[in-house]
Parts: sequence; structure tokens; C-alpha cells
Amino acid sequence: MSFVDALRSARFAPDKLHKVGLFETAHMFCDLYCLEPGQSQKSHAHAQATKFYFVVEGRVRARLGESERELGPGELAWSAPGEVHGVENTSDARALLLVAMAPNPNAPRPGAA
Amino acid sequence: MSFVDALRSARFAPDKLHKVGLFETAHMFCDLYCLEPGQSQKSHAHAQATKFYFVVEGRVRARLGESERELGPGELAWSAPGEVHGVENTSDARALLLVAMAPNPNAPRPGAA
Repeated sequence: MSFVDALRSARFAPDKLHKVGLFETAHMFCDLYCLEPGQSQKSHAHAQATKFYFVVEGRVRARLGESERELGPGELAWSAPGEVHGVENTSDARALLLVAMAPNPNAPRPGAA
Repeated sequence: MSFVDALRSARFAPDKLHKVGLFETAHMFCDLYCLEPGQSQKSHAHAQATKFYFVVEGRVRARLGESERELGPGELAWSAPGEVHGVENTSDARALLLVAMAPNPNAPRPGAA
């Protein structure tokens, strides 16, 4: 268990979206996605997991299935199992997303926390 | 699947912390907790689930096991299975928390989304 200052954990990379792991258990992981303008996570799907993107700072364009929407702070997009999702920072400012997925496909070990 | 404007979903109740359900699947649920000054969620534990509180607006005092900390926007507290956790708005302003728990103990039905 722990307290985490997610905002202060932000780190950006020049070449691609940078993911900062905030915590994980076998049940879920939680990351901070840090996107410079133009950076993205390509559309993909997880057959056996639920995931959401929550906008903490900045603006992004999110895709869910055949739908796309621009999201700002306080908005989220969530994908059901098997649903295609992706996100792109189409703005001219940095963006921060709180991202959680359950269950954790990289579960460290059964029951681990 | 869906897009959700979590911030605009905020609703407060005069008598106790108000929970707004943002989405749920069998894998996890995601709520917005809306706390007037003085409102709280009593300390409790979930034997088989992982949970986190992420501060969207305002400030709260979070308890994890024997630890307590005041958290502001961009900070989170997460609890491993079986770990006691709770939260209280000890400030004089409203507070909003994004809360996710996995798996969903109220799973509507197997595989539901």
C-alpha cells in the first residue's frame, strides 16, 4: 500500500508517450501516461481486461471502437474487454492521463500487491 | 464503452459522502466520490480487491493501515487486498475523488460490461 504523488511523477520522453507506473497488484495496474504534443498510443484492444483513460491535464483525442472524442481535464474514456481504444495528444500542450486496467495482465504473481 | 465527463457528474448530498457511479464492468468499477467539508468514508477493508482514491479537486485526509496523509489534487492512495483504508474531507472546501476498485464486488453478471 502507498501514497503516490501522481502529478509529480510525470516524466516525458522526446520520442514517444512515456508511461510511469504508479502501482500494481494482481487485480489492476495504474499508470500515468505523459504525452508531448503529437504523441499517441495506437489503437489496440485487450480481450480480457477493462481499462480507462482519465484526463488529469491537457487535452487528448480518444478513440473507442468507431467513436472519437476530444477530452479535457476531468473527462474519461473506458473500454470494455475486446474494445478497440487509443489516444492521441492533438493539442499543442503536454497531456497527462491517469490510466488503470483490470485485471493486471502483467500480474507480478498471484495475490501479489 | 463510453466517454464520461466525470467532473460534470459531481453531485453532493448534505448528509453524507455522495458516490456517483461512472462505469462498471465485472473487472472494475469507477466512481466519483463527492465530499462536502466534514464528510468521510469510514475506514474499512476489502479482502479480495485493490482500490485507489485519486484526488481530482480539493484536499482530503486519507488513511491506509496505520498511516495517514493529507492529499491534494494529483495525489492518490491505494490499498492492497485486506488493507484498511478510509478518507475524510477535513478541509473547508468540497473535494472530488476518482475511485476505482478491482475486481468489482458488485459485478452485474459474469463478463458483463
